[in-house]
Amino acid sequence: MNPSQLKTLLARVAAGEVAPEQAESALLNSLRTAPFENLGFARVDHHRAWRQGFPEVILGLGKTPAQVASVAAEIVRQGSTLLVTRASADAFDAVRDVVPNATYFDDARIISLLQGDIPRGQGLILVIAAGTADRAVAEEAVRTAEAMGNDVERLYDVGVAGLHRLLAEQPLLSRARVIIVVAGMEGALPSVVAGLVSVPVIAVPTSIGYGASFGGVAALLGMLNSCASGVAVVNIDNGFGGASLASLINHL
Amino acid sequence: MNPSQLKTLLARVAAGEVAPEQAESALLNSLRTAPFENLGFARVDHHRAWRQGFPEVILGLGKTPAQVASVAAEIVRQGSTLLVTRASADAFDAVRDVVPNATYFDDARIISLLQGDIPRGQGLILVIAAGTADRAVAEEAVRTAEAMGNDVERLYDVGVAGLHRLLAEQPLLSRARVIIVVAGMEGALPSVVAGLVSVPVIAVPTSIGYGASFGGVAALLGMLNSCASGVAVVNIDNGFGGASLASLINHL
Amino acid sequence: MNPSQLKTLLARVAAGEVAPEQAESALLNSLRTAPFENLGFARVDHHRAWRQGFPEVILGLGKTPAQVASVAAEIVRQGSTLLVTRASADAFDAVRDVVPNATYFDDARIISLLQGDIPRGQGLILVIAAGTADRAVAEEAVRTAEAMGNDVERLYDVGVAGLHRLLAEQPLLSRARVIIVVAGMEGALPSVVAGLVSVPVIAVPTSIGYGASFGGVAALLGMLNSCASGVAVVNIDNGFGGASLASLINHL
Amino acid sequence: MNPSQLKTLLARVAAGEVAPEQAESALLNSLRTAPFENLGFARVDHHRAWRQGFPEVILGLGKTPAQVASVAAEIVRQGSTLLVTRASADAFDAVRDVVPNATYFDDARIISLLQGDIPRGQGLILVIAAGTADRAVAEEAVRTAEAMGNDVERLYDVGVAGLHRLLAEQPLLSRARVIIVVAGMEGALPSVVAGLVSVPVIAVPTSIGYGASFGGVAALLGMLNSCASGVAVVNIDNGFGGASLASLINHL
Amino acid sequence: MNPSQLKTLLARVAAGEVAPEQAESALLNSLRTAPFENLGFARVDHHRAWRQGFPEVILGLGKTPAQVASVAAEIVRQGSTLLVTRASADAFDAVRDVVPNATYFDDARIISLLQGDIPRGQGLILVIAAGTADRAVAEEAVRTAEAMGNDVERLYDVGVAGLHRLLAEQPLLSRARVIIVVAGMEGALPSVVAGLVSVPVIAVPTSIGYGASFGGVAALLGMLNSCASGVAVVNIDNGFGGASLASLINHL
Amino acid sequence: MNPSQLKTLLARVAAGEVAPEQAESALLNSLRTAPFENLGFARVDHHRAWRQGFPEVILGLGKTPAQVASVAAEIVRQGSTLLVTRASADAFDAVRDVVPNATYFDDARIISLLQGDIPRGQGLILVIAAGTADRAVAEEAVRTAEAMGNDVERLYDVGVAGLHRLLAEQPLLSRARVIIVVAGMEGALPSVVAGLVSVPVIAVPTSIGYGASFGGVAALLGMLNSCASGVAVVNIDNGFGGASLASLINHL
Amino acid sequence: MNPSQLKTLLARVAAGEVAPEQAESALLNSLRTAPFENLGFARVDHHRAWRQGFPEVILGLGKTPAQVASVAAEIVRQGSTLLVTRASADAFDAVRDVVPNATYFDDARIISLLQGDIPRGQGLILVIAAGTADRAVAEEAVRTAEAMGNDVERLYDVGVAGLHRLLAEQPLLSRARVIIVVAGMEGALPSVVAGLVSVPVIAVPTSIGYGASFGGVAALLGMLNSCASGVAVVNIDNGFGGASLASLINHL
Amino acid sequence: MNPSQLKTLLARVAAGEVAPEQAESALLNSLRTAPFENLGFARVDHHRAWRQGFPEVILGLGKTPAQVASVAAEIVRQGSTLLVTRASADAFDAVRDVVPNATYFDDARIISLLQGDIPRGQGLILVIAAGTADRAVAEEAVRTAEAMGNDVERLYDVGVAGLHRLLAEQPLLSRARVIIVVAGMEGALPSVVAGLVSVPVIAVPTSIGYGASFGGVAALLGMLNSCASGVAVVNIDNGFGGASLASLINHL
Repeated sequence: MNPSQLKTLLARVAAGEVAPEQAESALLNSLRTAPFENLGFARVDHHRAWRQGFPEVILGLGKTPAQVASVAAEIVRQGSTLLVTRASADAFDAVRDVVPNATYFDDARIISLLQGDIPRGQGLILVIAAGTADRAVAEEAVRTAEAMGNDVERLYDVGVAGLHRLLAEQPLLSRARVIIVVAGMEGALPSVVAGLVSVPVIAVPTSIGYGASFGGVAALLGMLNSCASGVAVVNIDNGFGGASLASLINHL
Repeated sequence: MNPSQLKTLLARVAAGEVAPEQAESALLNSLRTAPFENLGFARVDHHRAWRQGFPEVILGLGKTPAQVASVAAEIVRQGSTLLVTRASADAFDAVRDVVPNATYFDDARIISLLQGDIPRGQGLILVIAAGTADRAVAEEAVRTAEAMGNDVERLYDVGVAGLHRLLAEQPLLSRARVIIVVAGMEGALPSVVAGLVSVPVIAVPTSIGYGASFGGVAALLGMLNSCASGVAVVNIDNGFGGASLASLINHL
Repeated sequence: MNPSQLKTLLARVAAGEVAPEQAESALLNSLRTAPFENLGFARVDHHRAWRQGFPEVILGLGKTPAQVASVAAEIVRQGSTLLVTRASADAFDAVRDVVPNATYFDDARIISLLQGDIPRGQGLILVIAAGTADRAVAEEAVRTAEAMGNDVERLYDVGVAGLHRLLAEQPLLSRARVIIVVAGMEGALPSVVAGLVSVPVIAVPTSIGYGASFGGVAALLGMLNSCASGVAVVNIDNGFGGASLASLINHL
Repeated sequence: MNPSQLKTLLARVAAGEVAPEQAESALLNSLRTAPFENLGFARVDHHRAWRQGFPEVILGLGKTPAQVASVAAEIVRQGSTLLVTRASADAFDAVRDVVPNATYFDDARIISLLQGDIPRGQGLILVIAAGTADRAVAEEAVRTAEAMGNDVERLYDVGVAGLHRLLAEQPLLSRARVIIVVAGMEGALPSVVAGLVSVPVIAVPTSIGYGASFGGVAALLGMLNSCASGVAVVNIDNGFGGASLASLINHL
Repeated sequence: MNPSQLKTLLARVAAGEVAPEQAESALLNSLRTAPFENLGFARVDHHRAWRQGFPEVILGLGKTPAQVASVAAEIVRQGSTLLVTRASADAFDAVRDVVPNATYFDDARIISLLQGDIPRGQGLILVIAAGTADRAVAEEAVRTAEAMGNDVERLYDVGVAGLHRLLAEQPLLSRARVIIVVAGMEGALPSVVAGLVSVPVIAVPTSIGYGASFGGVAALLGMLNSCASGVAVVNIDNGFGGASLASLINHL
Repeated sequence: MNPSQLKTLLARVAAGEVAPEQAESALLNSLRTAPFENLGFARVDHHRAWRQGFPEVILGLGKTPAQVASVAAEIVRQGSTLLVTRASADAFDAVRDVVPNATYFDDARIISLLQGDIPRGQGLILVIAAGTADRAVAEEAVRTAEAMGNDVERLYDVGVAGLHRLLAEQPLLSRARVIIVVAGMEGALPSVVAGLVSVPVIAVPTSIGYGASFGGVAALLGMLNSCASGVAVVNIDNGFGGASLASLINHL
Repeated sequence: MNPSQLKTLLARVAAGEVAPEQAESALLNSLRTAPFENLGFARVDHHRAWRQGFPEVILGLGKTPAQVASVAAEIVRQGSTLLVTRASADAFDAVRDVVPNATYFDDARIISLLQGDIPRGQGLILVIAAGTADRAVAEEAVRTAEAMGNDVERLYDVGVAGLHRLLAEQPLLSRARVIIVVAGMEGALPSVVAGLVSVPVIAVPTSIGYGASFGGVAALLGMLNSCASGVAVVNIDNGFGGASLASLINHL
Repeated sequence: MNPSQLKTLLARVAAGEVAPEQAESALLNSLRTAPFENLGFARVDHHRAWRQGFPEVILGLGKTPAQVASVAAEIVRQGSTLLVTRASADAFDAVRDVVPNATYFDDARIISLLQGDIPRGQGLILVIAAGTADRAVAEEAVRTAEAMGNDVERLYDVGVAGLHRLLAEQPLLSRARVIIVVAGMEGALPSVVAGLVSVPVIAVPTSIGYGASFGGVAALLGMLNSCASGVAVVNIDNGFGGASLASLINHL
């Protein structure tokens, strides 16, 4: 039973065309077996997307260019902001055919088209990357956070082996409302950053490294075991995930 | 809005006391925020337990004897069958104070009291154990399956290093409708059993072994990689889980 | 000693041509050293395949197209249903040369040709997939279950992060006799499904995910540790294995 | 060179008692070797603690009762709020001797004494626990968040195998500004919760479980691989860490 | 159908009392369902134990002293050599009550009583231990090999960090027919020994070590990856397993 | 100081041309710093190779075709048997240029040329493979054992899920002096084989499998935890290593 | 505030143009927010590089040829020694365009150009490699150590399975001031070497091996668990890291 | 043949009492079978201990108090410095009975008695510990380094979450010739320290931490993946190993 069916039913009860007992039985039956779709739950979901400040995001991983383009076209047609992560150049070629004004950030592997009324976050999201090799993941975080309506600044190549590079940027650190720290290898940078600031630090381990970095496990464990408080961790290489959480916080 | 409130509302719509638009708004609001408790979802849950043929089970692990006894008393008072797994002797002492006719199977670490109208399973559940050291887990499976209304037989100490012991019991194997195979060490027994029968085999790895058995990991991996089809695996030492699934299948 | 040799031997004993002691000795000797092949054990095996409802299945993995085609031709010539899993397009080209009416389901990587008298399963097997990326494994399960004589329905893209999608399909869930749940990433869907139904749930972890999903280990562990009862697990990406067990159960 | 020494030096330069070249050399030398302590960096640190809203916290793990009591007395004497985590009953006995009005929350293993002027967080922190066995970690989070000046509510025993328990509490979920989800076993609850709300979700895996839960690894991996966005993870059993981050966010 | 039943059946066929077709049917039926027990397969097993040169061995792990004593008494009553591994002092107390002349080697955790006619191995089994801490496992190997009829010599405390200790014993190495090398920590000794001799080397990793030895995993991996040929490995701490294989080889 | 230099020195001492003190000093000096090369230790090594029955073996892995060919030519020129493992087709092309009569077993990835006087092993080495996919590793074992002078037979495709295939070959099993068992997936076959025979069983795990086989780890752990005695394990896919040890045993 | 600004400020204080209070405030402000860059900390860093004896090193991994060439040109223009590790042939082509006299060591994957005044190390660095397959990592160590101003010698193919090869080179061992030992497979060589010398041994595990070497984990664990003292370990395949530390020690 | 036997032999050759051929044969024979013990290799070993600056060290782990005392008495009787690591209080009680003036450092679990002529190291060894919980391991390093003749200073509780504590001690850092960094949790401190100094840094991971620290694995991986050069790692909790290497370096 969808909302318009409900409206009709209640009108008919009011008109005496349907007995209340019948209406009760129909309603309960509908709710018991399928409470959501009949009530237009998808609409409620749309409302939720609006509150969160970002529309549905397409994960490019494991989709063909044609599949990505098809979903992208649908989203853009609804007037929503388009965001595709882990997008290949081929996927962008396919998307551009149907969404000509989409942009491709190849270092971030992200396709986006900003439109609609994205609410602005309240402060600055700072994205810190330990090394140049962590750049791709950091850029995924930057572009995601921007698409979600946040002011973003970058601070790259400030690994813990040369602390002065980070310490010299304390004024920038102190301006941020949320900080995303992207690091591979030993993953020590979030601990150091969290010791210097009093805002939430979201740590994103990367699979950068070799030998016993085990595809990011060393960085992940380092971040989970951070001796600093105020740090939480997302999945390896998950720049999108870090930025999503940062944006949620920044919109509080 | 609970069912009786719904009944009243609809009656008032029929009586013209409430406009259909008002009723529509009240209903949608109620459903959007708390669709379940107001519709007596818990009752549905009771119905579900009745259909499955077994009531709520208490996991004794990490509960004090007093806590176990308190929940046990509640269940028994409702007239349901009592089943406590991973129950210590101390827990049984506490339960016996409030449920005097409960039984303790110490080798299975299970407390039970059969009452109510448990539907009977259709066939035989056979519980096979590879070695004498797997006995505790196997007994947990046996007592669980019995409490859930199944006929159960045991076939213990038939490990793959002495195949003739298993092969000699083919008549018993062929009488089973579902087979639970409990094994530690290399966990090879389920593969061998599944090659001899044409009924579902539920494999329960145990933490029995030493050295590179790694607390049951070797057995678990062996079972997951079974070269025989018709085998599925539950958690290490989870005799209860194996029996629960076997009972579900046996009640189909 | 094969059955026709046995027939002859017994006739000669009856005819007095062979002394019973000689026959006894010959029989015992044959049984002790090679009890199976001389008695036509392969035939017994055929009988077993007939009871289980599915003939021998070819695992395409690690076989050349020519090898797959050769075994396929043999199976089809015996009048049995053909099922090849993990089959490449090249393998299908080779099979089609010798089995022209075989079908290739490329998303499932399965070649099949239904023939012979496959017994029908008793109820519905429902194959649920958490995300679009789990589709290939889910399709392997679907096509396998169909080839084994079962009615199958699909329910895809109902991951736990958007529960309403699953909850809206409760009528479909309640119609199933066995449910196969295919999921990658955190592998939480089987727990949720098992909490909503009272039939066996077979969980198939997939290697879908990135970062700390470790090729399906995260999903596998999630499923093994399910807090719901009535769930068992097969190997990562093993859609065939899940369907084989589901079919066994559905034929009980 | 501390600030007052700097003041004197500059005065002497102004007075012509020290040549500018001498002053330059002395300053550079001081900065090069020890830029921080001479500038009163510790003071800056005190300022930082004041901004964050919580004073130094004592980790009881690996300290003797006497050591805990000694540090606790020092903190209380400075007028700061006392918070000791992982505190044994023995540690509390020792603390009570020197801080008679301290409180011990034994289920949370926390000693605390609220004093001074803790700034209040802006909204509600909701602490959700999947099972009764996760209670200790959840309570550590609750007591930590309370000590840090936050309003906290509990929602316990709402694991994913019985979704209706969680769904029935959506009004409570929607009132929270930050949610901490504590879960062991398969760790699926954060994914489900994050799909229902639009606020940050901090996931705390617990070591609760048996068999292949591997001391919380299964839950940790499940949470890291969450298919829902807006989730970040802290260390296994780290209720304190989850609450620290939640409090930081709630004070933004 | 057991052998005497077979004899009777054939006699009746010869006597014309049973038609050959009936006999054929009865025989095939018997063989199909239970080919082994009716043919006295257990007897064959006894014969096999006799050929291998060692009787059934009791694994003390996970058995109560009473259980160990009960099985031990049975074995001794049959006139067989008694061997109990992983035997506690309590188990020995219980065994001594029923087998007064049994011996307990406490450093090897082995109870034994040599009797019957154990065939002698052909050469010398040399048991080498890297460090003093590997002694318990080495002694388990020594006492097992002795009980199985082998001449055994020990060479202890010859770890690779002081090669001259091992090199000085080359005459002893060259006298061995099979060598068991017991080592923990990095497990390098088997590689070095195998490079000095031309006889089989059986490597037994021990759980001795700390830090990243991970309970013997480091030694196990070291031995599996030996750059020397002629080395095979048994389970961690499995001195019994190493000696069993060595004895088999030495009896060839 | 090499042996001929020693001969000269002693002659000169006898002739009075060198004082004994001088000779003593020269000898001690030589021995202390380089006891081996000066004494022609390489020759002793040659003697050892002769005793072991097999010459130096070339591991093709990580060598260019030219490097393999260069070492191969050197070995053949010395009149020794040539054995190259893990040899690519390209490596064989290069070897054939310099060793025209070498043979390439492509399924075993082995190049060999038998020459010289290889001592014959005393009995039969039986190489058993669980599945067709284990064939490459099994063939590496077969060709290695043959090159080392052993009679070898094959028994392939006798996995534990169809026990009758193995049981039917007991006469062959009982003829072997050493058995090599090659298996992937759950690695259960060595346990079953060892329970049927009384000769050494060398288990070779293979990386065959998918999902949670983890590149052979499941099979490796299964074999290490074998519940049968008389089994030892070599590295994953190490058919050469298994055959080297089997040959050593067979030459005892 | 950089040093020349400081000089000016102090001169103006001396000249009475700036009040000491103003100067104090300006200085403290500068130090508090950015103590490093304003004081020319980069220069101090340059001074540090000069003391350590090696300039900035470029890690080629994950950089495009153009990026490598760009940084290389900059370093060479400053007159510093150029060292690029993990450099592909393509990267060298790009570098040669801008640094024509650079050298490429392809087996070491290193580009270098020695210039400037690198201080010489005091003794000999000996690089030992266990097998020919470890050569690439060993050469990375050799070329790095040479570029850092050290005398280096090689000792390759001296694995522990043929000890005499190593023992014959004791004079060379005794001449080294620091030893780098590169080994894959079981990683036992550092233990043996450290037992023969009294200088620091730096162990470099390599990913060479197959089966259960797990990409160098077996070698890494072997080295960490070395029973010899005086051994420390760097990351898998990290020849550069081993040489950097060796050079630091050799310059003490 | 020991050196004095060699002297006699050569004298007899010179005297014509032994033919040079006979002497040659005797010498070669002796060298081939046991080149080391006859040449007093143990003596050479003593010489080596003298050169390294530290005598034999007793690892208390896995030894009874009586065993420790027995070896300790022997070492002290030879006039050597006594060093027992991982020594329990009980072990000290036993040692004190036979070595009354031995000292027990209970926080380091070390028994020592300095005597003989230990050569002094050339510079300062600085032992840094990240947290108070790392103290036991750090003290093991301190007491070991002191016993080996080094000047040692401590710098404790300077974890990376509060960088100013470390930065304030740069003068101390710059005075050290070798630095040992002891850290648990994320193990980031060695990277930070190595970025501040130009001397060798030896990293000692500790098993301190909880949750996903996995007994020191997180710290170990963090240290192995250090982005700073000049860092090498020893086993988890191996303070003795770190100090042994540091002392070797400091004595160069």
